[in-house]
Amino acid sequence: MNGELVPASEATVNVRDRGFMYGDAAFETLRVYGGHLFEWEAHADRLAKSCEILRLDHGLSDENLRARIEATLDANGLEDASVKLSISRGVQPGKLTPSEQVDPTVVVTLSPLGRGGVDGEKPWDGPATLQTVKTRRPSDRALPSKAKTHNYLNGILALLELRVTGADEALVLDDEGYVAEGATSNIFFVDGKRLCTPTLDGPILAGVTRDVVLELAESEGIPVREDFFTPDDVRGADEVFITSSTREIRPVGTVDGIDVETGPVTRLLSRLYETRVEALYEL
Amino acid sequence: MNGELVPASEATVNVRDRGFMYGDAAFETLRVYGGHLFEWEAHADRLAKSCEILRLDHGLSDENLRARIEATLDANGLEDASVKLSISRGVQPGKLTPSEQVDPTVVVTLSPLGRGGVDGEKPWDGPATLQTVKTRRPSDRALPSKAKTHNYLNGILALLELRVTGADEALVLDDEGYVAEGATSNIFFVDGKRLCTPTLDGPILAGVTRDVVLELAESEGIPVREDFFTPDDVRGADEVFITSSTREIRPVGTVDGIDVETGPVTRLLSRLYETRVEALYEL
Repeated sequence: MNGELVPASEATVNVRDRGFMYGDAAFETLRVYGGHLFEWEAHADRLAKSCEILRLDHGLSDENLRARIEATLDANGLEDASVKLSISRGVQPGKLTPSEQVDPTVVVTLSPLGRGGVDGEKPWDGPATLQTVKTRRPSDRALPSKAKTHNYLNGILALLELRVTGADEALVLDDEGYVAEGATSNIFFVDGKRLCTPTLDGPILAGVTRDVVLELAESEGIPVREDFFTPDDVRGADEVFITSSTREIRPVGTVDGIDVETGPVTRLLSRLYETRVEALYEL
Repeated sequence: MNGELVPASEATVNVRDRGFMYGDAAFETLRVYGGHLFEWEAHADRLAKSCEILRLDHGLSDENLRARIEATLDANGLEDASVKLSISRGVQPGKLTPSEQVDPTVVVTLSPLGRGGVDGEKPWDGPATLQTVKTRRPSDRALPSKAKTHNYLNGILALLELRVTGADEALVLDDEGYVAEGATSNIFFVDGKRLCTPTLDGPILAGVTRDVVLELAESEGIPVREDFFTPDDVRGADEVFITSSTREIRPVGTVDGIDVETGPVTRLLSRLYETRVEALYEL
């Protein structure tokens, strides 16, 4: 909390903190393997972008933020964890209009996770069930999708729709009916031999894991198509998987009740991802 | 805080509270005049609707919530104030998916305000300047407009656009370009002899003050039109005003730099509103 180590139960913010009042905060969730932050620079860059969109000038360097994460890991003796780093605009005088002078609230929280890498344990149990929901992603003009913020009700409303079927992840469409992303993941599918994923031109978050997967596909010469896709493209795909920092690459077993096989492209990319993670344990 | 009176500086929530993490909370801002809550039932009904949309079953009666507000007023010796009542989904195990079992966080905060009514002081200084912004209201399919929640970044982004011109309030359009509302107010204008305001069929909040104004207009036989309107309808209007619980009826002096007079309809409705408030001081 703001650079001090406190027990989780004492990690609190004032109710006048703009993070609590308005969700006026940016965050990152990232993975730590063997004590090493995975893709720290990509996360730091995205956080900077989120804060730029919110015009939240917190004045802290990436190194400073990284040091806070590492101190929190050390204090908890954790080497395999997921980390949430949040920066809110803090308490300010006045009402909704933000002041330019920011005394930010910086929060680092950890959750222990199993070892990753080639022989690692996955934090999920088998392929995911994916279900299209009625809740749509906000347009970029309403809430810029490239900012990862504490305004997460859209994702929560999508997940609430899954109470009926018990599906693992929502397939959320944009306002025009194209596939956007999951509530907390990016979506990939294989169409013939091409790896397909919604384009960043749509209202989707630029996932760090999404980027890593595209890089791995390129390095293996797998053709990639980033474009606008319909739900039927996903339902009829040969393979489907979702990505996020904590789930990494999770195969999808059914889309709207339609079975999908876990095929060779998903397996190859998972193996490449695990190898990349494994390298961190050898540092 | 959760039924206990604590100093403002000690009114805190844990950083794992879903209100802080995701803005997963509903709220009301209401006005107290002479110790009496203005339009409490309308606020309680809307809060219940917000919680229903979020499927946040807090299990507390309206009477219970009202008693917490009154206890907070008493403890602060305040008779003229604005009150913010927030209910978050609290701390829950697991990730983004909400549990049905809710241990809510209930927060009541107060800000002193001047006396209202016929000889009252307004919390604003002269007619407002209104400025159309690029930020658009989210569609109802993305974030239901009838829920008043802690996901307020859309309004913040609208207000950030006003830094350039220094305007008082944003004129926010919906995705199709129709007038929706202000960042924290509803918009009314007079067209000939008719009082016009955006229809609730659009993505706008059902303002409690908006409702009172419509009721007052009806009681005076002023013709009302609730419909979809363009920014040009507002720019070319004879009179324009904005409404909210704390600002009540605030005349608008310019829309996108175009001058607007404060006319007889605005003055009449303001007077009727003040009379209605005044009655509370005589209880």
